[in-house]
Amino acid sequence: MQRDAQVEKTAMRHALDAGTTPGLPFGPNPRVGCAVLDADGRLVAVGHHRGAGTPHAEVDALTRAGERAHGGTALVTLEPCTHTGRTGPCADALLAAGVRRVVVGMRDPNPVAAGGVDVLRAAGVEVDVLDAHLPLARAIHAANRGWAHGLSHERPFVTWKTAGTLDGRAAAADGSSRWITGEPARAEVHALRARVDTVLVGTGTVLADDPALTVRSADGTAAPTQPLRAVMGERPVPAEARLLTDGAAETVHLTTRDPRTALATLFERGRREVLLEGGATLAAAFLAAGLVDEVVAYVAPALLGAGFPVLGDLGITTIDDALRLRLTDVARVGDDVRLVLHPSPTAPPEE
Amino acid sequence: MQRDAQVEKTAMRHALDAGTTPGLPFGPNPRVGCAVLDADGRLVAVGHHRGAGTPHAEVDALTRAGERAHGGTALVTLEPCTHTGRTGPCADALLAAGVRRVVVGMRDPNPVAAGGVDVLRAAGVEVDVLDAHLPLARAIHAANRGWAHGLSHERPFVTWKTAGTLDGRAAAADGSSRWITGEPARAEVHALRARVDTVLVGTGTVLADDPALTVRSADGTAAPTQPLRAVMGERPVPAEARLLTDGAAETVHLTTRDPRTALATLFERGRREVLLEGGATLAAAFLAAGLVDEVVAYVAPALLGAGFPVLGDLGITTIDDALRLRLTDVARVGDDVRLVLHPSPTAPPEE
Repeated sequence: MQRDAQVEKTAMRHALDAGTTPGLPFGPNPRVGCAVLDADGRLVAVGHHRGAGTPHAEVDALTRAGERAHGGTALVTLEPCTHTGRTGPCADALLAAGVRRVVVGMRDPNPVAAGGVDVLRAAGVEVDVLDAHLPLARAIHAANRGWAHGLSHERPFVTWKTAGTLDGRAAAADGSSRWITGEPARAEVHALRARVDTVLVGTGTVLADDPALTVRSADGTAAPTQPLRAVMGERPVPAEARLLTDGAAETVHLTTRDPRTALATLFERGRREVLLEGGATLAAAFLAAGLVDEVVAYVAPALLGAGFPVLGDLGITTIDDALRLRLTDVARVGDDVRLVLHPSPTAPPEE
Repeated sequence: MQRDAQVEKTAMRHALDAGTTPGLPFGPNPRVGCAVLDADGRLVAVGHHRGAGTPHAEVDALTRAGERAHGGTALVTLEPCTHTGRTGPCADALLAAGVRRVVVGMRDPNPVAAGGVDVLRAAGVEVDVLDAHLPLARAIHAANRGWAHGLSHERPFVTWKTAGTLDGRAAAADGSSRWITGEPARAEVHALRARVDTVLVGTGTVLADDPALTVRSADGTAAPTQPLRAVMGERPVPAEARLLTDGAAETVHLTTRDPRTALATLFERGRREVLLEGGATLAAAFLAAGLVDEVVAYVAPALLGAGFPVLGDLGITTIDDALRLRLTDVARVGDDVRLVLHPSPTAPPEE
């Protein structure tokens, strides 16, 4: 059997790309892709999962590969399952296809489904699991972070996106905010939306800004698949609001002011990754409750000196109580700066 | 005559380092250094200017080089002068020493002193001026930016240093602010102070924070030479204020609230580079008057949600009037982010 690390890496990248195809139906299932190399190390098939009730990625890829999988290698982004759900166990399918080697992108954190690596090894298949520190493994983990987070926390992964001036203003005193950031930063926000399954705002933002919250390309065209748009709060949403009248995406109104209740409802609906957009009050409620897992902040090289702050009151009155985060990335995006922050590992744990 | 680009570059770097020796007396004169290579291309002397009334850098270096300058090369950070002030013209001194080649770091923007390059060339000396885009030339320009700015604007170059949270707070609601940023960012602020000749705060900052505003090393030791500490505002400064009782540096109280008046007074005293530190009101007054030439902003990965903003009211009420700056640098400093911004070239000119 041929074995070439570079060929396997390229095949795993194909598997990841297939598993994260834009427009796949979102839901509580992981995003999984699988590539198959034949016994001579040639890429013969790539498959992926298409949502609950459809074949798993391995079965999809093995079906495409047919006889050519025999004696070959399967590269699968997630550990093959061993349980029979709506589809049969993938570990068995790999054995039945006569695959001699399997490379796994990440272990399955779900105890019900895990164990595929052991089953395969017990049957004499050579199995490697990617080192979690490799860039490719990190990309695979990132693609499934909402799903993995849901398994361990039973709520969606929450990213707060904010954009403001250097002095922390999201809008001027008259409420105007278009545009604080430049076009490249705004394009990135559409990419952020495309990555999540839910975009969440407060009723205050709907009343003040009437946003569409759809994923659009630079020319304004709506993407074929859109995240769910969720509005949270007890005030009614006007029937003429853009996010109700613009049919590009589904909209839900969560009539609660409690972040925990809102996330529980979204989780029950199969939502795993929420982008919190705009609304200083909403952001403050999530942050104060310890329910923000990531902050993506765009800082524009502009000063307002007055106006609406990017963040509402957290109940913090002294510097020692400041909410400290961990800066994980900083980069220039057009004329703006993007900071990515995560909860500090030394911060007190979420209640 | 030997000529080696690398040797000349190294020599010019020595000249720059000599001209910007920490602890040199500050004043309205440029910071100039000069290195001399002998006819075989060996570095034989480095000299620098030590403030008004002392020999210019060229004369200092040529005196040290003596006979060895004959047939050699002089590398001088600023175009040699042609006028007789308190010292004789440097172009003549270079000719008298028999130097055959001169490399100039930057042209003299002062029309009274300029012309050295032409005088030297007319006398048969080979003269090169560094391309202003080279990193070394940029460093030379930067070292003299206060002086050059003074020539063209008749006021000091003003840098506003600010430090705040991601949501634009300089202090919590109870006034506490130690420490918003980490140790590496605070060490940089001391380096910023060491580079300027004046540190300026408002009386409000003195009353609220009682800062020392001295240049100190990490162990708290005050540097041997300190910038002037200037306090601006009409309120009295308490006799027990640290910047009056700490004898490490000179302190002046400018009893005005007008930024233009304050800068005129400092300029008359020979001050050319002012670091504006702290004070949201003071910063707003300078920004609104178009008197900030550079912003150095430290953003800490922390959120307060309330408290004192980094910047006071600029009188801006709508987004189209936001003060737009040009982001010239962004970098991580410890756990914080440093942004450097300059007035946008498209902004309306200063009145």
